Amino acid sequence: MSLARTVMERCQELAECSEEEGMITRPIASEAMRRAQALVTGWMEAAGMAVTPDNIGNLRARYPGDGDAVMLLGSHIDSARDAGKYDGPLGVLTAIAAVQHLRDQGRRLPFAIEVLAFADEEGLRFPTTYLGSKVVAGMFNPRDLELTDARGVSLRSAIESFGGNPDRIAEDRWRGSRPIGYCEVHIEQGPVLEQRGAALGVVRGIAGQNRYLLTFRGEAGHAGTVPMNRRRDALVAASEFVVAVEREARAHDGLVATVGRIEVRPGAPNVIPREVELTLDVRHAEDARRAGVAERILEHANQIANQRGMDLAVELVSENVAVPCSPKIVSQLAKAVGDPVIMVTSGAGHDAVTMSTITEVGMLFVRCKGGISHSPLESVEEEDVQAAIDVLNRFLELAAQA
Amino acid sequence: MSLARTVMERCQELAECSEEEGMITRPIASEAMRRAQALVTGWMEAAGMAVTPDNIGNLRARYPGDGDAVMLLGSHIDSARDAGKYDGPLGVLTAIAAVQHLRDQGRRLPFAIEVLAFADEEGLRFPTTYLGSKVVAGMFNPRDLELTDARGVSLRSAIESFGGNPDRIAEDRWRGSRPIGYCEVHIEQGPVLEQRGAALGVVRGIAGQNRYLLTFRGEAGHAGTVPMNRRRDALVAASEFVVAVEREARAHDGLVATVGRIEVRPGAPNVIPREVELTLDVRHAEDARRAGVAERILEHANQIANQRGMDLAVELVSENVAVPCSPKIVSQLAKAVGDPVIMVTSGAGHDAVTMSTITEVGMLFVRCKGGISHSPLESVEEEDVQAAIDVLNRFLELAAQA
Repeated sequence: MSLARTVMERCQELAECSEEEGMITRPIASEAMRRAQALVTGWMEAAGMAVTPDNIGNLRARYPGDGDAVMLLGSHIDSARDAGKYDGPLGVLTAIAAVQHLRDQGRRLPFAIEVLAFADEEGLRFPTTYLGSKVVAGMFNPRDLELTDARGVSLRSAIESFGGNPDRIAEDRWRGSRPIGYCEVHIEQGPVLEQRGAALGVVRGIAGQNRYLLTFRGEAGHAGTVPMNRRRDALVAASEFVVAVEREARAHDGLVATVGRIEVRPGAPNVIPREVELTLDVRHAEDARRAGVAERILEHANQIANQRGMDLAVELVSENVAVPCSPKIVSQLAKAVGDPVIMVTSGAGHDAVTMSTITEVGMLFVRCKGGISHSPLESVEEEDVQAAIDVLNRFLELAAQA
Repeated sequence: MSLARTVMERCQELAECSEEEGMITRPIASEAMRRAQALVTGWMEAAGMAVTPDNIGNLRARYPGDGDAVMLLGSHIDSARDAGKYDGPLGVLTAIAAVQHLRDQGRRLPFAIEVLAFADEEGLRFPTTYLGSKVVAGMFNPRDLELTDARGVSLRSAIESFGGNPDRIAEDRWRGSRPIGYCEVHIEQGPVLEQRGAALGVVRGIAGQNRYLLTFRGEAGHAGTVPMNRRRDALVAASEFVVAVEREARAHDGLVATVGRIEVRPGAPNVIPREVELTLDVRHAEDARRAGVAERILEHANQIANQRGMDLAVELVSENVAVPCSPKIVSQLAKAVGDPVIMVTSGAGHDAVTMSTITEVGMLFVRCKGGISHSPLESVEEEDVQAAIDVLNRFLELAAQA
């Protein structure tokens, strides 16, 4: 059986580790995660690796090398709710496959390889993200131990039930010398590769993101009795803004901006809207571009509010800077892919964001059907998975020569 | 005490008849309505009228005339939830005041005057409207007796508890010869009179209304990973539409169009909207204009959906034709007001809509502060109320001379 076929079957086996019947839902420190860990541990060991679970629940598996240096590979094995089979597991299983390939050849590289299967990237159970990689990067905040899930169970108690020691999590941070790098294979979660007819894409960087909450405040009134020229309709203002967001985003290459949630008050068919609250999400791989366009977009909001005699409140909910991938890893991955190379920006965040604080990072994206993710409709082709494993192995060889 | 002062004080007394502490909420067949009816009956009798409650709970009070003809005056004494003091009661109490004025002069007109205090216009308790005037107009549907309120009480049983006989409601329809007309005083519920600096407005007609439910269906996607040129964002399409609705409505004098409710699915900050459902309300005093503009607006929706490769579903929820006021009553009211006369269209519906099926109708609007209604902030000036009573008396004299 080919390595890719094995990866496809293992993605299916992991999909059956779920907390919810008929769907894939695999949160941190759950029984589903325990079954998934058992499977992954077995596959890691079969590929010649020594596996150590850490206190947060990450699996850390080492394939020895001829020197002290270490290359990190991996991704996460938790899932979103009603998720697909590939977001996360594909990165872990292709990494194990690449190691298996070395093992099958009886080959060692000048560096050890450590495959990381992170316990929590999605933040499904607790209100946090990147919990697994944060522990490795030494960014874990002990106060997060008191966070509770929907049933009131604290992270501390969840970790204890799962077999970890919450008070020793700080000891799990990366303690060796600086790794050579961290390389993560992941489904694209977007339509670009499919559109370009390419199996794989090399990630330039992970976009920065600004999230805002905007509130337009006008005046309510009777939909039948207030003439058009006497209205201060908060929804018309907000709609003008939504159209302006699209226009502005389209004018800037690589930029995406989205209004995903909108709430109208009072929200009755026969009442002129008094107040509209909406979310704005702006992303770009270059921080200066993102900041500049976000400013222009907010300027549109101000103009619209002024012209319509309305109040506008803008709240910056969060701001994440862009994470550029390592030029060295990008160039090695590009060489491993061979011409033509499709370079892409990741609009979504990944464990690589956190790992970039302790080492150089790179990512390889795999084409997924329709760009769909976080859905049971997630789908990848076996031949694309084989291409990813091959590229990962060529990348390791190039890194070994560097 | 002036008649207007009396009307103002009586509006306050009625405001205290409420089902809810600290607000005005007076549904049909409630204890609050029973107290209100007792007050109104007393005031009607004091003005020299014989009062007959009917089975739905309307009060019908007759001031005799010198002939068989009858002129109808009135409005409703139920309220919306957390309502104001004037929407409804002002029309009943100014009518009583006008009759009181005749009585004070010991004067009879060539026609009798019947003042109607309708039991239910707002439809607060049961899912229906104009229940009171429908009974008088012979439009009551006996199947409505089985409608239930929020507590599961049927209209039939509510009427019985209140003292009416639900099986004899049909007998309450207007049975005399055709009335001369029905004239209703009401607060404007809009800002036009205030803006024009006028106490009163003569209503040309009551606007027709089309209500629609529109659904734009695009494609969901990750807000970070789907490039702008690959999106089919249902909210951007809907927003373009909302802006087009305003533009189109502004281009047609006297037309109002409102999107009051909008719902986005899935409605998460980081997900491109897949589907947007929104309401559209279009009103104009001329049916052809309303229909024509509604068609143009829906054409915009189609164009936007087509250009963006989306599905569009349009449902006509309801269509009410315009009710023109009687030219004779309009001209008598205009003469009674004297120059300059402000002519207005009623964008809201009133009992006059129902009454127009059995007689000619007219309405006199009274300026209200900020155009606000259905709110505890409803406010009218005592001198405007005096002007309305004076106009109503002059109108009755003009009708007597006609």
